[in-house]
Amino acid sequence: MTMLDIIEKKKLGGELSREEIRFFARAAGEKTAPDYQLAALLMAIRLNGMTDRETADLTMEMRDSGDVADLSGIPGIKVDKHSTGGVGDTTTLILAPLAAACGAPIAKMSGRGLGHTGGTLDKLESIPGLNVMMSEDDFIRQVKEIGLVVAAQTGQLAPADKTLYALRDVTSTVDSMPLIVSSIMSKKLASGADAIVLDVKTGSGALMHTLKDSLELAVRMVEVGRMAGKPVGALVTNMDQPLGTHIGNALEVKEAIDVLSGRATGDLLEVSLVLGGHMLVLAGKAETAEEGAGMMREAIDSGAGLQKLKEMIAAQGGNPAVCDDVRLLPQAAVIRQAKCGTGGWVQKMDTTALGLASQAMGAGRKTKEDQLDYSVGYILHVRIGDRVEADTPLCELHARNEAEAEQAEQAIRQAITIGSEPCGRAKLFLAEVTADGIMRL
Amino acid sequence: MTMLDIIEKKKLGGELSREEIRFFARAAGEKTAPDYQLAALLMAIRLNGMTDRETADLTMEMRDSGDVADLSGIPGIKVDKHSTGGVGDTTTLILAPLAAACGAPIAKMSGRGLGHTGGTLDKLESIPGLNVMMSEDDFIRQVKEIGLVVAAQTGQLAPADKTLYALRDVTSTVDSMPLIVSSIMSKKLASGADAIVLDVKTGSGALMHTLKDSLELAVRMVEVGRMAGKPVGALVTNMDQPLGTHIGNALEVKEAIDVLSGRATGDLLEVSLVLGGHMLVLAGKAETAEEGAGMMREAIDSGAGLQKLKEMIAAQGGNPAVCDDVRLLPQAAVIRQAKCGTGGWVQKMDTTALGLASQAMGAGRKTKEDQLDYSVGYILHVRIGDRVEADTPLCELHARNEAEAEQAEQAIRQAITIGSEPCGRAKLFLAEVTADGIMRL
Repeated sequence: MTMLDIIEKKKLGGELSREEIRFFARAAGEKTAPDYQLAALLMAIRLNGMTDRETADLTMEMRDSGDVADLSGIPGIKVDKHSTGGVGDTTTLILAPLAAACGAPIAKMSGRGLGHTGGTLDKLESIPGLNVMMSEDDFIRQVKEIGLVVAAQTGQLAPADKTLYALRDVTSTVDSMPLIVSSIMSKKLASGADAIVLDVKTGSGALMHTLKDSLELAVRMVEVGRMAGKPVGALVTNMDQPLGTHIGNALEVKEAIDVLSGRATGDLLEVSLVLGGHMLVLAGKAETAEEGAGMMREAIDSGAGLQKLKEMIAAQGGNPAVCDDVRLLPQAAVIRQAKCGTGGWVQKMDTTALGLASQAMGAGRKTKEDQLDYSVGYILHVRIGDRVEADTPLCELHARNEAEAEQAEQAIRQAITIGSEPCGRAKLFLAEVTADGIMRL
Repeated sequence: MTMLDIIEKKKLGGELSREEIRFFARAAGEKTAPDYQLAALLMAIRLNGMTDRETADLTMEMRDSGDVADLSGIPGIKVDKHSTGGVGDTTTLILAPLAAACGAPIAKMSGRGLGHTGGTLDKLESIPGLNVMMSEDDFIRQVKEIGLVVAAQTGQLAPADKTLYALRDVTSTVDSMPLIVSSIMSKKLASGADAIVLDVKTGSGALMHTLKDSLELAVRMVEVGRMAGKPVGALVTNMDQPLGTHIGNALEVKEAIDVLSGRATGDLLEVSLVLGGHMLVLAGKAETAEEGAGMMREAIDSGAGLQKLKEMIAAQGGNPAVCDDVRLLPQAAVIRQAKCGTGGWVQKMDTTALGLASQAMGAGRKTKEDQLDYSVGYILHVRIGDRVEADTPLCELHARNEAEAEQAEQAIRQAITIGSEPCGRAKLFLAEVTADGIMRL
């Protein structure tokens, strides 16, 4: 078997065998195949597709190309959550402490910001002293002790995906359903969870802009989970506007603390409760998702969720006092308000542009080497469907200097369409996908 | 404009503009684009195709990626001939001297053997002392002096094609009609001819195995020639068996000398006369292809063709006495006969396998670095449709040693099917393609 045989077969529209998929996943992971052959194969896959069976095989072979975390030392059912990426989406920092407070062990490996989307690790690192890098032993010990850890991946997870992802980015093969599914699921399966709840975003700030594509992605990921023998469920949720109101690393930590303290409500809270409710079901802690969501809400009211976050911050070397005084988080040099400037209804948002505006302020990376400024970002005061006047507050900018605040204000203004016609609210939950099928919500 | 934009467009099935094609042809020629991006683009072209306009643009941009030979210093219309490659196809060494003897200036840049097919340069180098490497000045001077040169390309022709061809070979993108057409035609146009006669082979030893594909290739090459403003005609000829009877470098030179001396007849002579007849028409030396073929045949009878070959060999430093005594060509250590071994009718031949048998004896290269043995190869005594007995001679093997002779005999035997049913002769000329259309022959 050679790479050339495999490329030839996929070029002609054939279905690759498990052995053929193993061959090229290993070649990618061990970097034994030249990039140009992998690139040709990726384009052939992009154009000729893969069956569910091929996609599942690729997922499992990419998982097995590196370390697979062994969480068996942690008692109970370990449920993970994965979001396909959005703006103002800090659900992990809310639902992880709440689910842990409800008795579900949470051993979560998170990632860094990518493009216009934020990353949980970057947000956590905005907490003074907090460390996200730890050994597998320490990772497991912390879950056993306090029931909760959110950290960087231990070991080398799915190196084949790392090679292929980097190549897809520069060969116009990112938008391939089987490659997206296998990339996400291989890393999730390698991080060792027993069950997974997926949050598939849809809309202007999501990987998939249309509901049709988002549903297909959800269905295929659930199917691959089924083939891998793991319970996987997915919710398709709205990303036509930022999920929360705060965008930027420390600002999103602040919003998570606000939600856990019961001070903040809205879409971010709703999505966190529903995803968490599903996690509690998979963890065997609730009978139904509604019951689970109710338990999560109680953990807010009782303060148990916030307490769990404090324990986690302390265990990872951070200052838990931020939970009581959010002013201990990094503060931007310039903080100022911007107004809408025009009256009407908020019609739509270019959510990707809103994410990039925050990135440009210093909250995200343009290249892997960029240093982040944890303090910067903005708080958005409007949502789709809002009736606004010219002097209605649009946002609160947190910037390194006036020039960058001004630049961000322009970008945010341009990303938000205010029109003269009334406009309905955006629907938050679009669908639920399980191994049994799709349920439109 | 970036490579990524171009890949994206072709991936989505779009038609690339001249500017986009220029961008990537230059990037290939100057090696400024990474191989993995070129590989992804080649696969997208293989799977999504190219229009005739794109193919013509790619041809011209690849031509312009390097030197374009200037033959304007040579008086008259310079007509070139190109074969898509076959086995036992030594037409160039026959028709070039004949056409030159008929007054058409022949300034031909040839290539080396590739895979199972032989190359004119390798054959010429089997003539003791003969040199195929020369400067453009010497190349042009020789045509002016004796009306004939067959040599390696002068200057760097179509470096973009060189890069892309090497990549296609290792990414399973050789079998793309627009890439084949542009590869062949860019080099032909860069070698400076005013008009071109194409010999598109079809059958078991050809680039295209089916008549349908061969016709499409011929039509598209003629169309690209039209778009480039050059008269181009094509003949589709049979390659279900070797064209001549001799396979191997010195053996093919011997067969060419035999044909030019009037000692040998058969398909090789027929194809040479017909292609040459068309060349004489394009060169303005004959009214019709039939008249041209007749002039070529007269140049055999008069000895003018053989005399022209002698002049060329002498001008290029070789020993022209080989034309009078073919035993001056390299002789193999082992020469022996093989018999058919079974009676019946010759039904079919795997002509690619027959070419590879000669390659394995040392007549062709497996890698670019392989040194050739000019003396080796074989003379095939049977043709499709022949009635043979077990003791009918099958072939005469010319080998370096007994073991290689034995190995070749086995390979040849395996490549030739002798069955109990009578079988018709293979049709030699299948079609003629001009800018006016296809004429089945």
